[in-house]
Amino acid sequence: MRAPQLDLTRLLQPRSVAVAGASPEPASLGGAVLRNIAGSGFTGPLYLVSPTRTEINGVPCLKSLHDLPHGVDVAVLNVPHKAVREAIGACIERGVGGAVVFAAGFGEAGEEGRREQEEIAAMCRTGGLALLGPNCLGFVNYANGAALSFESLDFQPMAGPPHAAVVAQSGAMASNIRSALLARGARISHVVTTGNEAVVRIDHVIRHLVDEGVGLIAAYVEQIRDPAAFLAAARVAREAGRPILMVHPGASASGRAAALSHTGAMVSDYAAMKTAVEDEGVVLVETMDELFDAAAILYRFPEPTQGRVGVITNSGAVRGLSLDFCEKISLEVAALGRDTADTLRQLLPPQCEISNPLDVGTAGFSDASVFGKTTSAMLADPAVGSVLLAMAGGGPWQQRAKAEAIAPVALTASKPVTVAILGDESPLDPGCVAPLRETGTPLFRSPERALRAFRAVNGRAVAYARAAERTAPPPPAPALSRHGPLPEYEGKALLSAIGIPVPEGALVQDVEAAVAAASRITYPLVMKLQATWLTHKSEVGGVIVGVKDEAALRAGWRRLTDSADRARAGGAIDGILIEQMARPGLELVIGGRNDPDWGAFVVLGLGGVWVEALDAIEMLPAHAGRDQILERLRRMRGAKLLGAFRGQAPRDVEAVADAVMALGTLLRAHPEIKEVDVNPLTVFAEGEGVMALDALFIAD
Amino acid sequence: MRAPQLDLTRLLQPRSVAVAGASPEPASLGGAVLRNIAGSGFTGPLYLVSPTRTEINGVPCLKSLHDLPHGVDVAVLNVPHKAVREAIGACIERGVGGAVVFAAGFGEAGEEGRREQEEIAAMCRTGGLALLGPNCLGFVNYANGAALSFESLDFQPMAGPPHAAVVAQSGAMASNIRSALLARGARISHVVTTGNEAVVRIDHVIRHLVDEGVGLIAAYVEQIRDPAAFLAAARVAREAGRPILMVHPGASASGRAAALSHTGAMVSDYAAMKTAVEDEGVVLVETMDELFDAAAILYRFPEPTQGRVGVITNSGAVRGLSLDFCEKISLEVAALGRDTADTLRQLLPPQCEISNPLDVGTAGFSDASVFGKTTSAMLADPAVGSVLLAMAGGGPWQQRAKAEAIAPVALTASKPVTVAILGDESPLDPGCVAPLRETGTPLFRSPERALRAFRAVNGRAVAYARAAERTAPPPPAPALSRHGPLPEYEGKALLSAIGIPVPEGALVQDVEAAVAAASRITYPLVMKLQATWLTHKSEVGGVIVGVKDEAALRAGWRRLTDSADRARAGGAIDGILIEQMARPGLELVIGGRNDPDWGAFVVLGLGGVWVEALDAIEMLPAHAGRDQILERLRRMRGAKLLGAFRGQAPRDVEAVADAVMALGTLLRAHPEIKEVDVNPLTVFAEGEGVMALDALFIAD
Repeated sequence: MRAPQLDLTRLLQPRSVAVAGASPEPASLGGAVLRNIAGSGFTGPLYLVSPTRTEINGVPCLKSLHDLPHGVDVAVLNVPHKAVREAIGACIERGVGGAVVFAAGFGEAGEEGRREQEEIAAMCRTGGLALLGPNCLGFVNYANGAALSFESLDFQPMAGPPHAAVVAQSGAMASNIRSALLARGARISHVVTTGNEAVVRIDHVIRHLVDEGVGLIAAYVEQIRDPAAFLAAARVAREAGRPILMVHPGASASGRAAALSHTGAMVSDYAAMKTAVEDEGVVLVETMDELFDAAAILYRFPEPTQGRVGVITNSGAVRGLSLDFCEKISLEVAALGRDTADTLRQLLPPQCEISNPLDVGTAGFSDASVFGKTTSAMLADPAVGSVLLAMAGGGPWQQRAKAEAIAPVALTASKPVTVAILGDESPLDPGCVAPLRETGTPLFRSPERALRAFRAVNGRAVAYARAAERTAPPPPAPALSRHGPLPEYEGKALLSAIGIPVPEGALVQDVEAAVAAASRITYPLVMKLQATWLTHKSEVGGVIVGVKDEAALRAGWRRLTDSADRARAGGAIDGILIEQMARPGLELVIGGRNDPDWGAFVVLGLGGVWVEALDAIEMLPAHAGRDQILERLRRMRGAKLLGAFRGQAPRDVEAVADAVMALGTLLRAHPEIKEVDVNPLTVFAEGEGVMALDALFIAD
Repeated sequence: MRAPQLDLTRLLQPRSVAVAGASPEPASLGGAVLRNIAGSGFTGPLYLVSPTRTEINGVPCLKSLHDLPHGVDVAVLNVPHKAVREAIGACIERGVGGAVVFAAGFGEAGEEGRREQEEIAAMCRTGGLALLGPNCLGFVNYANGAALSFESLDFQPMAGPPHAAVVAQSGAMASNIRSALLARGARISHVVTTGNEAVVRIDHVIRHLVDEGVGLIAAYVEQIRDPAAFLAAARVAREAGRPILMVHPGASASGRAAALSHTGAMVSDYAAMKTAVEDEGVVLVETMDELFDAAAILYRFPEPTQGRVGVITNSGAVRGLSLDFCEKISLEVAALGRDTADTLRQLLPPQCEISNPLDVGTAGFSDASVFGKTTSAMLADPAVGSVLLAMAGGGPWQQRAKAEAIAPVALTASKPVTVAILGDESPLDPGCVAPLRETGTPLFRSPERALRAFRAVNGRAVAYARAAERTAPPPPAPALSRHGPLPEYEGKALLSAIGIPVPEGALVQDVEAAVAAASRITYPLVMKLQATWLTHKSEVGGVIVGVKDEAALRAGWRRLTDSADRARAGGAIDGILIEQMARPGLELVIGGRNDPDWGAFVVLGLGGVWVEALDAIEMLPAHAGRDQILERLRRMRGAKLLGAFRGQAPRDVEAVADAVMALGTLLRAHPEIKEVDVNPLTVFAEGEGVMALDALFIAD
């Protein structure tokens, strides 16, 4: 049974705080904590615990955590590794609500540390203590004035929403994200480092932050310890319209190994994680730069918008480079509507070509209002979901004039408007930065970074739209009676039952039955040995193709039964499957699985030798709809083979989508099906359907 | 015949200057030019030409260019489009050495403009006038004090070398690159915008700049108008060890179309351009960000170094993310030698894992010298070609301490050392920036950008190393006697002559000769109709495979001759090629061409349906050596098929390399061979060679 959501209110919004290991030394961890508590404006009761001091900065010290009054909200346990367990015991005894543990040497440090961490976690769960860490940097709650962290922090008066929050399993990355977002002008309400997550996990923190109404959550994650709880938290955030942006190393094999050595994080299947979290609207990006860039846009424009990107520039060079880059990152630019084109034509001199990206040329040189007006015109186009102004800034007054023309339009825009002024790190006129900053308009120096961020933001909008159309899960079906691999004929019966065509055929137990069955089917035939223990039939000579008459059938029968005897002396077979040879077509592979961590998925790709040579299998959630599947088929590597190709008719991709959807529904109704692999699924010409030539199911 | 290198000394280093269209108005183009000439510290004679004014700022005006004294070095022609031709005539008449034309409306503006531009260019060539433009922004020579540009410019005293120079066909991009490089602390000697390049082309400017001893050239190019001259200039730069970095839009089809509408630039084959310029050591990057980043490294470290990248960090998160990113961009990290590992082990606490990327953990927290020492240790490793320190900066004094530890090591390093301090745009302590800036150590805020730049820099080093090993061109061979497509049997004879195996076979003219030939070859056979007009044999039924006996041979003869009659009534055929059926193998395609712009290339890729489905053909210079070809075979899409795959032995890649090299040599010796296409080239198991099953040569 799933544990209820941990209440983090006492931990993260404490009204009273205790610090064990307090110190007057500013360079010590204990001293840094006290400085931060003071700096954050915390005004509630503060209890200092020190075995050696009677007072610190005028505050009297308690000798031990056992001396705390009952019911303090949170205790910072700045104690060495070996003293952690006892300190936690004391906290539980005194009814403390939450604790922060900095000490390392637990789950990340080998077997013994892992055991200690589990024991502590068990104590906390029993005692109702919300433990943050161990091996963390604590947290800062700027909104409620509580900084239980030993980082070197600045504090400014807290301005109103929107607020961004940072959650990270790495202290360095928390700090990195915080600094970067602040530099972009975001206001930050929380920075929470969860370290080893003995008790409080990233999903708990996300749910708490959504409940607290933060505007955006930027997360750095090395291990999602409870995938289902994480997905539930992501869903809550999506339903509340709060963006979650996440970096999660491990896309590469070497990155996964590094994560393992860093925090002992065992990374589950990255592709499954990616598919599942993106399906819940999480913006999963590959680099911190992309996180910062997408956050800059979503902080101001959290509303998902439909439509493609519009680009306005004053440089023909930027126009060409943007098109190259959009193609490279598979970001489609909007096709402008006729009304938009008419409006733009009236705004611009006749020599300007009306297109997207739109190069206004020198039209904005003397009158920068053209940048605001063209932006408004593009935003009004339903095909446009967001607008990037990628401009050479010119001299200081030109920079200013551009910003002043664009800022009021961006201020009232409901679709994302961002500005990129060329020149990389070269200084901008403050009069250019101010109006953009004041209106919250994201400002980039690189059009490419802005475009990449748009791609991430668009992906979220698509996920939101798909979530709104998601079908209800099918009712659970009676579980399969078999465990382990199913023989092919049973798998094919399952496929046939869900509407995926299989070759005409019959399972027969003796050669006369085979001959009788063959008379009802047209030669040539295929003969396949059937047994649960025989998952790789070809390797033991268990398949004969092109059986063209009765004599060949009888000879084949002998060969197959001999093969069976050789492969597993005395092993029982279920029989031999006699099937009509399928006519040739394009071989795909489709399949899916119920991942123990991430739920039900379907996969698809080119079949045969292609799938291995290209290393390109596409993964989708099992509830993916027709459009999502067709879009993936169009985009997959080698997709050209599905179209009109070398004089052949286009392939029946609709039938492929039907088959994939049927498999998805089956997997959702049968959580006991661990895996299914249809390889190959032959696809015929448009309107002629598909056929599953093999099927391997593995049931739990 | 190739024109000799244009002497640009008078144009770009003028001792006397005339300005036509001079103006006292600071906001006018003519006024901006005068301000820049004064600002640049130009002290030579200055002649102002104005039909309406008698003096400007105390300088007397001439009525007309015809009034100039003879032999002024350069004239700025700030005159309207329609007055350009006459102004140029006057310049030539007065013995002016160079001219700068801002006016647009020439080659970029349609047919009439193109014609006018050609006429002007012809005048200049005859009259010996080095014309910059039209449709350009002029140039700035900071080194010699001459700014013939109407841009808004700042001038500072010129410091010593190294100097970077900027050359661009777009004024906005010239400005973009200049600002960005200055912001990175580079000193700039020249910014030259070439506009439509009626006379002075980018290659002329590059050669001039190399002769002037600039340290680095950053170029933005939309059209390379004389590929051979550009490659020659790139070679001169390479031989002088001066990096050229270049952005050239047009990698995508839409980018090429945009370039065409921007400046009328007809982009030649992008892949051929890329292959050729990279082969000459040009760093061709896809975005301006990459240009800035690679320039930041090459400005300080122009010397090509061998070896892979080493990464040092204080964050496990950065370690994992870097590995993911390196895999994504195909940048290999160095495998550290045992000596290096031993040294590092002594420098670091025992819990640090010695690896690359190297995470020093908290070891640098109290003693930043660890960053300098580990950098020295990595640099000493011959496997390491460059080092990136990607670090969480910490508080101000920690940032400072890190920079102070690293700067002295970077100062004396001969391999590139760069620093990336996390936090994106968040401010850095000035005490951290200063030591890095003073030692010229490139400073990034994004490890990913630094790594991408390293990849570009490494590519240049590889090109330099390969250039040093390049073989001399083969002696020219007697040209083929045929023009247009060669029939297959002739193509195969050519292949056979250069050592590429072809099936055993014979060209025969009658059926009895076919039967006789077949008796010397083992059945089954292939029969192929041969005629120069028949380049797509299969489509007209001109090929029969699997001919298994004499009867089939005779029947096949009738079918083929009937096909020939149907396909081209009365068209003569050369005969029928009778060949032994080849045993199966992996089908590749190899080929090449003599590109009229970019020289001789070879190509390779998977054959059959793969090459079309994957859209993945690899291109190499025709002089590519064995290692370069093998490396490309390993990296190409679908390369897995060449290895041990599905129980098959690895393929004979050495024989593929032999065949590709032989084709390359053939193409270099026969410039009249426009194109050759061997599809398929069947590759057998290791040690068993290759066989060309078809061959199409097209000769000029």
